[in-house]
Amino acid sequence: MEKFNKKSNIWFTEYHTQDAGITMQIKDTLYHERSAFQDIKVIDTEEFGRVLLLDNLIMLTERDEFIYHEMITHVPVHINPGLKDILIIGGGDCGTLREITRYDFIESVKMVEIDADVVSVSRNYFPDMYKERPNGEIIIGDGIAFMKEHKGNFDMILVDSTDPIGPAEGLFNVDFYKNCAGKLSDRGMLVIQAESPYYFPEVCSTIYKNLKKAFKYVIPYIAHIPTYPSGMWQFMIASNADMDINIKDKSLSQPFAHRLKYYNHAIHNASFALPNFVKGIYE
Amino acid sequence: MEKFNKKSNIWFTEYHTQDAGITMQIKDTLYHERSAFQDIKVIDTEEFGRVLLLDNLIMLTERDEFIYHEMITHVPVHINPGLKDILIIGGGDCGTLREITRYDFIESVKMVEIDADVVSVSRNYFPDMYKERPNGEIIIGDGIAFMKEHKGNFDMILVDSTDPIGPAEGLFNVDFYKNCAGKLSDRGMLVIQAESPYYFPEVCSTIYKNLKKAFKYVIPYIAHIPTYPSGMWQFMIASNADMDINIKDKSLSQPFAHRLKYYNHAIHNASFALPNFVKGIYE
Repeated sequence: MEKFNKKSNIWFTEYHTQDAGITMQIKDTLYHERSAFQDIKVIDTEEFGRVLLLDNLIMLTERDEFIYHEMITHVPVHINPGLKDILIIGGGDCGTLREITRYDFIESVKMVEIDADVVSVSRNYFPDMYKERPNGEIIIGDGIAFMKEHKGNFDMILVDSTDPIGPAEGLFNVDFYKNCAGKLSDRGMLVIQAESPYYFPEVCSTIYKNLKKAFKYVIPYIAHIPTYPSGMWQFMIASNADMDINIKDKSLSQPFAHRLKYYNHAIHNASFALPNFVKGIYE
Repeated sequence: MEKFNKKSNIWFTEYHTQDAGITMQIKDTLYHERSAFQDIKVIDTEEFGRVLLLDNLIMLTERDEFIYHEMITHVPVHINPGLKDILIIGGGDCGTLREITRYDFIESVKMVEIDADVVSVSRNYFPDMYKERPNGEIIIGDGIAFMKEHKGNFDMILVDSTDPIGPAEGLFNVDFYKNCAGKLSDRGMLVIQAESPYYFPEVCSTIYKNLKKAFKYVIPYIAHIPTYPSGMWQFMIASNADMDINIKDKSLSQPFAHRLKYYNHAIHNASFALPNFVKGIYE
């Protein structure tokens, strides 16, 4: 019977809808606590390495977190390279902070995460994510309140949130987007993660429409993250300034291009190509 | 207890590796027989509609089969629009035949499928797949033997096969690729499905190397098919003639562009952009 006992036979399944999901075998549960905001787990999986779960949904896996974090940062930076001051709302796992602080010319990155426990879990369990960054500052607090109180504008606001249910709900509505628009510099951009256009087209559509009420331009782009629902993931860049998607300076990521595992200039351009069924969501 | 009984609670799980997979709730099993070659099932699922399983692996779902079938056909046609005679090896579900026969200028498409039962299952259970096509001919037989015996060349050979284990194993080796090269017209191309670069990089690498032993040019491209392993799917175009990936004639698919749910000209170009970790497989 030995062959049946080689692994744990404990499986984590995330249901993407009531009727479909992804399943993965677990080596061990490394951490499980309820914070003031959500249930937090770190599981160690056979296939994907360590996985961070918030309210039992996959936030990241060690195996492919690079895709999400490279794509939420390097795409917008290459469109608007004059960035100095950046705000991340959410992003407690520190992956977005890691990617954006790779740029020496970015002077200040403030990350406002509501849940201190997510940051400490990242620090303790995801050594590739959390690091001290000379141009990065971690602030524990409510992103919506922070934005209202903060004096001064940002050149880019990155909303690296959980899904539109739970603690992050307020980060997907028009009021919040208008607040963001009011706190951006002249050429400033808001960048958000916007769910799966395959499973949740109506969610993508609502986000797009809400953004359009606060911004003149909203441009969706896509990355492929195998451990997220459907593997097809939507991001959106919004701005009130004229914007085009072309790379303005190809040398920007040159100092660390060898560390990037997904983003390159061809992928940059490709990410704005939407399949017809996705284009249809935004028409 | 009513809420627990609303659906079947029967789940089909395809394991992509020993440690991870996709799971989906079934309404019903509509067909299950063993053919001379493989186990064939049609399940009706809540999320993806009807699903064709060969040896318990997902070949297609009604929900997203369009992605695979549009991408294996329309990309190569737009690179080399002078196509007249085409051979499909495999493709018994008739989805590739459906897409390629949309082009009026293609005079003859021969589809050689080894398993007659797959074609009859398509005919009986997947009405959007099987249709009589004036320029399409279905031949039941062994593709490798057919190629050896056939007099005359093809302008394009599409290998729409199952995975490199089981009945399709012989469709991934150098001898077969050399046979294909010998049966192509001057500007002819071989197009194949080449598995998931995320889960099976070594399989993709082997296929690429085998193709390079028979062809001067091998160009990989990608589509995103949520119900295939990892959702990231590799295709390759191989040729001994000079080839570039640019669209040669934008009007080619114009008569039926409104029917296409994935392919468009921007997606065409985007599909050749490979993430760094995929590029690394072919270096």
